[in-house]
Amino acid sequence: MKGFLGFLKPQNMSLFTDYYELTMCASYFDNKNFEPATFDLFIRRLPENRSYFLFAGLEEALQYLHNIEFTDEHLSYLKKQGFSQDFLDYLGGFKFTGDVWAVPEGTVAFPNEPLIRVTAPIIEAQLLETFLLNTINLQTMIATKASRVVHAAKGKSVIEFGLRREHGIDAGMKAARSSYIAGCQGTSNVLAGAAYGIPVFGTMAHSFIMSYPKEIDAFRAFAKTFPDKSTLLIDTYDEMAGAEKAVIVAKELEAQGYKLGGVRLDSGDLTKTSKKIRKLLDAKDLGYVKIFVSDDLDEFKIAQLLNEGAKIDSFGVGTKMGTSADRPYLDVIYKLCETMAANGSFSPIMKLSQDKITLPGRKQVYRFKESDGNIKKDVIALANEHANGEPLLVKVMEKGTLTYRLPTLEQIRAEAFENLSKLPEEYKALTNAPTYPVELSQKLQNLIETTKTQLTKNEINNGVQ
Amino acid sequence: MKGFLGFLKPQNMSLFTDYYELTMCASYFDNKNFEPATFDLFIRRLPENRSYFLFAGLEEALQYLHNIEFTDEHLSYLKKQGFSQDFLDYLGGFKFTGDVWAVPEGTVAFPNEPLIRVTAPIIEAQLLETFLLNTINLQTMIATKASRVVHAAKGKSVIEFGLRREHGIDAGMKAARSSYIAGCQGTSNVLAGAAYGIPVFGTMAHSFIMSYPKEIDAFRAFAKTFPDKSTLLIDTYDEMAGAEKAVIVAKELEAQGYKLGGVRLDSGDLTKTSKKIRKLLDAKDLGYVKIFVSDDLDEFKIAQLLNEGAKIDSFGVGTKMGTSADRPYLDVIYKLCETMAANGSFSPIMKLSQDKITLPGRKQVYRFKESDGNIKKDVIALANEHANGEPLLVKVMEKGTLTYRLPTLEQIRAEAFENLSKLPEEYKALTNAPTYPVELSQKLQNLIETTKTQLTKNEINNGVQ
Repeated sequence: MKGFLGFLKPQNMSLFTDYYELTMCASYFDNKNFEPATFDLFIRRLPENRSYFLFAGLEEALQYLHNIEFTDEHLSYLKKQGFSQDFLDYLGGFKFTGDVWAVPEGTVAFPNEPLIRVTAPIIEAQLLETFLLNTINLQTMIATKASRVVHAAKGKSVIEFGLRREHGIDAGMKAARSSYIAGCQGTSNVLAGAAYGIPVFGTMAHSFIMSYPKEIDAFRAFAKTFPDKSTLLIDTYDEMAGAEKAVIVAKELEAQGYKLGGVRLDSGDLTKTSKKIRKLLDAKDLGYVKIFVSDDLDEFKIAQLLNEGAKIDSFGVGTKMGTSADRPYLDVIYKLCETMAANGSFSPIMKLSQDKITLPGRKQVYRFKESDGNIKKDVIALANEHANGEPLLVKVMEKGTLTYRLPTLEQIRAEAFENLSKLPEEYKALTNAPTYPVELSQKLQNLIETTKTQLTKNEINNGVQ
Repeated sequence: MKGFLGFLKPQNMSLFTDYYELTMCASYFDNKNFEPATFDLFIRRLPENRSYFLFAGLEEALQYLHNIEFTDEHLSYLKKQGFSQDFLDYLGGFKFTGDVWAVPEGTVAFPNEPLIRVTAPIIEAQLLETFLLNTINLQTMIATKASRVVHAAKGKSVIEFGLRREHGIDAGMKAARSSYIAGCQGTSNVLAGAAYGIPVFGTMAHSFIMSYPKEIDAFRAFAKTFPDKSTLLIDTYDEMAGAEKAVIVAKELEAQGYKLGGVRLDSGDLTKTSKKIRKLLDAKDLGYVKIFVSDDLDEFKIAQLLNEGAKIDSFGVGTKMGTSADRPYLDVIYKLCETMAANGSFSPIMKLSQDKITLPGRKQVYRFKESDGNIKKDVIALANEHANGEPLLVKVMEKGTLTYRLPTLEQIRAEAFENLSKLPEEYKALTNAPTYPVELSQKLQNLIETTKTQLTKNEINNGVQ
């Protein structure tokens, strides 16, 4: 049987692209258009209930740029699609040779701010679009969602538990990575633990309980194997009956010199039951036994549970975080903002489609802070302007070579923690957060007006000459 | 730079699992529990606006079962997690040895119907849970969503265009495959084209237009490269001005003996604009030029466009189909339904957690049809019952060996077409479809009652003895 995932090799990512990227490149090639151009990757708008983005995915984006190549197998497939031999020869020698600027992973960002800026011969820069969008969309979406969940948990630990419903294998890996960046304590995904060094956590399934003649037999069997780190799932039949059996097992463990780790609830009225269970455990001198809950959690349900005074130590958050279920995509786009003109100078470019206009020119984002370090406002400016704020985009590749020291996952997580801690509390509200101020510099505003006037003149009133 | 995707190898999928599967298996091992058990994979309920599922993902599930193994690298990671050497030695020789029954890909299915049924030593059967859920969730979810989109398009072609917003690399591949099964004509994903043989399609991006001094220069450049298959994107600046330029280029192509393929709209009032453009094209004797639209489409928007009489030949459907945006997960679960008792006979198992009860015993699904071939009702029965309907579950693996001839993708697509054509129209309504009748056989109902009574007696009234 042919193995699955055979096609998911780094070098195959050159074909992991929309067909139109290749037809456009073929036409650029055919028309000898190798002039440099600049593209911005940014997110057009905030989804409902989001008030910021937590940027993630840069490492894989850079690995892609570093690895992109076309093999003979690719070229043979593309030949069957009708591409010319000249163009295929060009692809055979393809290597990314451009300059890339980006904001570091773990940065808090806002709509319309360039997150990755690519300057390269247009035929190269165009080809990258689909992969860059795919990886940044997923990772930034999950990091953003997870940061909301972690915030709602008010310091209680959150474990990423979504592997079974995340969208396939790669999503399962990236959701674990992105939610760890955002402050989750770990993941249930063992491969993510092995690949990224993220702490892994797990308890037991209902099936484990049900496979034994009696619930308490299952508890005893598990406690025998993991005497000092068992979390017993107590709601298979009846939570309170289950809790009482957990107490018995906890006492049996104490007699052997061990401590039961915790109990887990996965259904029912979590506030009411957690309070009753905490009371029971405390009455039996089991104050050290933690209460862990799961059951379709998200930031809203966690906030509600804590508001109701639920007695919960730790949350397992799965599907709704791992799929960003209330908004499973971002409006992330990759847009041309500049081309080189015939005389060698760069020309600003913008799009005028209804409700989909873009910002022309090569840009930088400057961040301004309060005296206490909290962030105050951002200004999107032209790259060659001088501004007082802190520039967010840093150079990460020059002429196709990595010039950036990739931070470790722990460093990225620390960067996210620092960024989120400097984001004023009001922007972290789960609903109805105010809009963080992102201004356009005067020079950028002027450029927008002149570009718009010029385009309207050329294309709409006078375009068919 | 370390390549990405290095960890996505078929054999690594044994670690692509929730940590608790391994802790449970360790405890089964420690307690010498190797008795056979049966698990059902099924979907608990229909998401809002869905009235059936289109099952997909079996091929990869079987490849996983065939390939699962633990390498020295895996075992060394697990050793650091504290698993015992005895258990690691067992994993080192792990091979799946169970029997598997499943419904074929492309089958229309309903809640609570077993889709995959695994009978194996419980330690093996448990370990599979996460991967099976992950792959069936994604593929069945997208196939179901895409079948709704294709139905709404009423015979106009639908192309899957969601690669940039699908959740990572694997989701991009599976979304292309699943939506092709459901009746899409093709995908924009070139790697999916190469890996699965799915037809690939694409037009051009706004950036291509914007990179030329004038829109018409871009049209001419593209038409030069693809004189007989260009679809020109006409809304970068103004749709009607763009359409007039497309007419000029179409006439230039005619003069050279070629035909313009189509024009594409990606914004604005698609109904109004498509009618105006159709009129313009027809007035210029360009009846053969197709109108292709994209712009945030889903089944609801397509139905609305066609109801309004929009003049559209083909739809490019992206994000909302490729992420199943209105419901980005299914309630797919994998539940123990039977264990072997001490005397060698099988004991039925069920779960009583509030709102989460499951069906005990080893089961089969029988489908009943009208005389015209349309499907009428399903009955979930015990596997050893005789029923008149057509059994849906077929044996696919015996003692760990594949006993099923894997159909080709085209065969699966034909199966889906046949299944959907036999699903009465009323169940395909986009909203408020009636509930398809799924009954439980009398024997299954009896088993539920006796199992429930026994469990309540054992666990709730009398459990702590």
